Amino acid sequence: MSGFTRLFNPRGVAIVGATEDTIRAGGQALYAISHHGYAGNILPVNPNYDTLGPHRCYRSIADIDQPCDVAVIAIPAKHVPGVVEQCGQHGIPFAVVLGGGFREAGPEGVANEARMLAAARKGGVRIIGPNCLGLANIHQNVFAGFGSITKPPKLKPGAVSAVIQSGGFGNSLVIQTGEQRVGFRYVVASGNECDIQAPELINAFVDDPETQVILAYLEGVADGRALMAAARRALAAGKPVVILKAGNTQQGLRAAASHTANLTSSYDVFRAALKQCGVIEVRDTHEAADYVQCFAAGRAAKGRNVVVMGGSGGSAVAFSDAADEVGLKLTPLSANTMDVLRDNLPSVASLENPVDYAAGFISDKNAPRFLNALDAVLADPEVHQVGLLLATSTGRTMFNGVAGVVNALKKSDKPVMLFCSIPYAAAPEGYDLIAAEKIPMQPSPRRVAYAMATLADYYDVLQQRERICNPPQPKPRALPPLPAGAVTLDELESKNVLRAFGVPVTHDVLVAPGAALPANVKFPLAVKVASRDIAHKSDIGGVCLHVQDGSQLEQAIVEVLRNAKRAMPQANIAGTIVAEMITDGLETIVGVVNDACFGPVVAFGLGGILAETIRDVTYRVAPFDKIEAQAMVRDIRGAKLFDGVRGQPARDVDALANLSATRSDMAWLMRERVAEMDINPVLVRPVGKGVVAADALIVLK
Amino acid sequence: MSGFTRLFNPRGVAIVGATEDTIRAGGQALYAISHHGYAGNILPVNPNYDTLGPHRCYRSIADIDQPCDVAVIAIPAKHVPGVVEQCGQHGIPFAVVLGGGFREAGPEGVANEARMLAAARKGGVRIIGPNCLGLANIHQNVFAGFGSITKPPKLKPGAVSAVIQSGGFGNSLVIQTGEQRVGFRYVVASGNECDIQAPELINAFVDDPETQVILAYLEGVADGRALMAAARRALAAGKPVVILKAGNTQQGLRAAASHTANLTSSYDVFRAALKQCGVIEVRDTHEAADYVQCFAAGRAAKGRNVVVMGGSGGSAVAFSDAADEVGLKLTPLSANTMDVLRDNLPSVASLENPVDYAAGFISDKNAPRFLNALDAVLADPEVHQVGLLLATSTGRTMFNGVAGVVNALKKSDKPVMLFCSIPYAAAPEGYDLIAAEKIPMQPSPRRVAYAMATLADYYDVLQQRERICNPPQPKPRALPPLPAGAVTLDELESKNVLRAFGVPVTHDVLVAPGAALPANVKFPLAVKVASRDIAHKSDIGGVCLHVQDGSQLEQAIVEVLRNAKRAMPQANIAGTIVAEMITDGLETIVGVVNDACFGPVVAFGLGGILAETIRDVTYRVAPFDKIEAQAMVRDIRGAKLFDGVRGQPARDVDALANLSATRSDMAWLMRERVAEMDINPVLVRPVGKGVVAADALIVLK
Repeated sequence: MSGFTRLFNPRGVAIVGATEDTIRAGGQALYAISHHGYAGNILPVNPNYDTLGPHRCYRSIADIDQPCDVAVIAIPAKHVPGVVEQCGQHGIPFAVVLGGGFREAGPEGVANEARMLAAARKGGVRIIGPNCLGLANIHQNVFAGFGSITKPPKLKPGAVSAVIQSGGFGNSLVIQTGEQRVGFRYVVASGNECDIQAPELINAFVDDPETQVILAYLEGVADGRALMAAARRALAAGKPVVILKAGNTQQGLRAAASHTANLTSSYDVFRAALKQCGVIEVRDTHEAADYVQCFAAGRAAKGRNVVVMGGSGGSAVAFSDAADEVGLKLTPLSANTMDVLRDNLPSVASLENPVDYAAGFISDKNAPRFLNALDAVLADPEVHQVGLLLATSTGRTMFNGVAGVVNALKKSDKPVMLFCSIPYAAAPEGYDLIAAEKIPMQPSPRRVAYAMATLADYYDVLQQRERICNPPQPKPRALPPLPAGAVTLDELESKNVLRAFGVPVTHDVLVAPGAALPANVKFPLAVKVASRDIAHKSDIGGVCLHVQDGSQLEQAIVEVLRNAKRAMPQANIAGTIVAEMITDGLETIVGVVNDACFGPVVAFGLGGILAETIRDVTYRVAPFDKIEAQAMVRDIRGAKLFDGVRGQPARDVDALANLSATRSDMAWLMRERVAEMDINPVLVRPVGKGVVAADALIVLK
Repeated sequence: MSGFTRLFNPRGVAIVGATEDTIRAGGQALYAISHHGYAGNILPVNPNYDTLGPHRCYRSIADIDQPCDVAVIAIPAKHVPGVVEQCGQHGIPFAVVLGGGFREAGPEGVANEARMLAAARKGGVRIIGPNCLGLANIHQNVFAGFGSITKPPKLKPGAVSAVIQSGGFGNSLVIQTGEQRVGFRYVVASGNECDIQAPELINAFVDDPETQVILAYLEGVADGRALMAAARRALAAGKPVVILKAGNTQQGLRAAASHTANLTSSYDVFRAALKQCGVIEVRDTHEAADYVQCFAAGRAAKGRNVVVMGGSGGSAVAFSDAADEVGLKLTPLSANTMDVLRDNLPSVASLENPVDYAAGFISDKNAPRFLNALDAVLADPEVHQVGLLLATSTGRTMFNGVAGVVNALKKSDKPVMLFCSIPYAAAPEGYDLIAAEKIPMQPSPRRVAYAMATLADYYDVLQQRERICNPPQPKPRALPPLPAGAVTLDELESKNVLRAFGVPVTHDVLVAPGAALPANVKFPLAVKVASRDIAHKSDIGGVCLHVQDGSQLEQAIVEVLRNAKRAMPQANIAGTIVAEMITDGLETIVGVVNDACFGPVVAFGLGGILAETIRDVTYRVAPFDKIEAQAMVRDIRGAKLFDGVRGQPARDVDALANLSATRSDMAWLMRERVAEMDINPVLVRPVGKGVVAADALIVLK
């Protein structure tokens, strides 16, 4: 945090462009810093005023005679570089630039942004924004900004810090999370992020001892690996990071491009990268609110065995459906626990998990019995999490349920979540207790299940944090010789590169045009045209498979050459490849792409036309270890094929994972030269027989 | 409605088992009917009291001397049949049985339920329940039940009627929907549904002129076709039906079985059946609340062209992502509309859809300009729906946005939805107006998009209601001769049945064991073992494909017979089938299953091991027309394969749809005899070349 201490806890805040008019940004900013209880120096800057409200107004930054750490700049873009320069000269380390008119506003804006940044670099000034709402330190009442972030509802202090790239929608996320009894620490609406970017802010939150949970709304990141690094630091510190990312689809990208000017990466890659470093990605604001409140409660769910209790059988049914979807297990209770339930719950109760104590049971009189039951369930060693499905319980019944949970939580470190579906007015006493004790509560059984699964997922990831936070660093090694320039290697050249990294490839022989047929070949064979100029051989009839004997071989060679010449008469043809034909392999594809934000990324999927059509593909940012490579195999929808279905043998997944991990090393070590690398197909043979790259394509840059 | 008029609008309500003790069901029921303003006769029945509160208490049903249409029965199960009998004798047409102890409670309960039903049939009494919370008529303050349905929060009167099979969770759904400014008419918690079942209640809601939208929480239905028929009646009447179904997964089914005793069908089939008759199926309570409030607003979305306006660019990005997912188009605005926007919105505004008028624009002063812009957008003929993304707008800004919408809606019949993310306290004036005018509002841009898509989907379905509400009735015809009993037909027998219905099958020749090879065959051929006892030939090596010449044919026949005899020595083998081999077909599967709830159902999916592994299958309840059959092809994830990807030809989807429609006729006409019918594979050849059933299996019952 050291680097940002004065940003979040400034001794004084200057408002450049301060006015009385609270419609204007400068007026809003002055109002915001003045009316929330900020204890530091409030320093309006505007040559047109001597005072503004109770505050002396300065003619310029240079006139400020009080300690000042943040300048909120609310003046037209063209004047901002000069003000930033003054900040540098005057020792003000942070500028919050509210207005637009920079990178997103055409060439003039780009030039202006460059001037602003140059002034900042020169003077040692760090910039939040431009085109942003600014920031808030909820604990210290610092509201250095304008717009919704400074307006009601006022957030409560707490342990969640947030970075939001869009003020309006990002703040919607923050507000809705706040409405779920979540308190905040820092909220930064970072706008265009010309200088300070989301990853750096996440790092600052990781370093802040008071921040326990990190929330982000992102539309894009310039440096995906910086985001991953920050997320890994958060994981190492045990601080969950919840990210909502927008700008993921065609229409969304179009909207984002006209909104901020952030780079946007492929959403699939983005999701994979987040998952790879333990980030909890959500699709909508209510999901974020659901999960953040659970994380903020600070209890770890040490597994997926859950118990739900309630008086509403339908709620238990709905919960059970969702539990199945997210891999939670409604675990059987121990005999001991069942005994306690039998002794305390009414005779009509259903004691098996889901426990149904019959609606209305938790009267004042029965509250102690309910607590006994809940205590016993929480004490059951097989149980990791408990859900209390209060559903439509109101008044005292609802209060007694909540009070029981509060009581039981004192004796247990396991998480308990509530489902309540009634409005506040129907059980104010219970809701007040929920709020006071910050008990996680969701408005449906399904959302309880999803939140429980998210807690359990995070615990899983935490157990692997040593590994996840320290991805392998491939040892530098001599790269195989590569031609210069942005050329495409032909199949044999590509396979030679693979071979240099120890990737098993088919046994191939190049037959020059007109040369004699190779002797001692083993049928069946594949015959393929060899040419750097023909990347997709089979599309032009340049491949002939299942060649069974010498005469077929002769014919196949003639045919693929003729097809290739016909389809691509200008292509430079090296000859034909006569290749060993593997007939017991499951076709998969292992590719490498160079993502705009994340750099080298390995893609894995099943081969074949259906798999390609339904895009059954998974990604990992390179470099990664074999455990990630194994997880990739399980990620795809058709994963069961590797187990051997319909009488087919189980596949050599171990060899496949080795190959993917090797690919990750290759992708990383060759990142300066490789634009794209495909092995298609990688044939995954039965267990023990390994994998073979049957075709390959490397595109250099 | 006529049949249920007296249930929903009773002249008097008897409470059998009424007491002073409001912990007990009878006490709650008496309290409920007495304290909500019910204007009819309140008739407590309990031999232990002379009066209860202000009411005369009757010793028995027989003593009641006032008009009475509903008896709420809150006494132990064993006494219920007697009371139902008295209801019949006394001319009370409806009994609401609150308690359990019937079908779900073992053999004794089953017998008791039978006695109760016999008494009901004899006396012409219809029963709601047992094991239920009863019912409410919100408009007339009839609360004939107990538990949450009779307790706060009190629903507001409106045009939504609901049937809920679980009181607690179903009422959660109703309450949460009510919290979204939705008013209700009838709410029936139908419990075990021993007599009156959900479909009959839906029919009653369809017949009720005041009900405009129907909501249901179901755990299962005994008669799926009755549910479909009710849903079709609702569609014909233009009343949307929104259903949340639970008990869909293994754990959910287990929970449901111990909760109610309804039949549960395959969830996939259930979903397909609902979709087939225009029902809106939801997975969680908030979805239902989102959609019901839009339907209750009563505006049709006549297409998928949408415009969003707002001051929060991030909200527009998030909306656009979701719009892409659900197939909404951010349609370009006409030049005319753009002119109006240019004249009225601030210069920094982004006029292209999504329209960004810049945060804070809708001040009191600018409100008329905002209205001009909104009017123009709504008047644009290309625009079907509008979203106003108010996001974090508060106070007057938020109010002015809402007021503009209220105003604009007077001049347009298009739907407008709001996204607001702030709590009530930050904009009470605006929220009160939203509530008063029942403007649909969602808490995230994504949920606005999903609600818009749901409105548009429903409009699509409405346009087809003539077709959807009148599924084809296959003409009765002579069925091909079938053996008696529950036997499995072999491939040739099965294909003969197909042929009788005009389904194209491969040209096959049966070669008896030891018989001469067929002459004049055309290679390549397939050779398969023919046996009623071997359903899955390829699993035991009973199939040999790509047979190229006479010697291979001879060998193949020997081989498949040897394999079959080795694997299933007891099997009765008719010989081998020598079959035409189609090499230009895409493998698909068209099956028929007999679902426990829905009867004959046609399943369609791609063939091949991957498609089976990922369960890429879709269903339709038979009989259905060719348009449904065509929709089935588009339903599956791999649907693009039919368009011809990767150089493959486009497929004869028309012939495939004909075949599926024929299958639907077969499934329906042969429903008394067929347990299961598979055509696997159906080979879909290039456009114009048709389809061929290459293998078939019919299991009779």
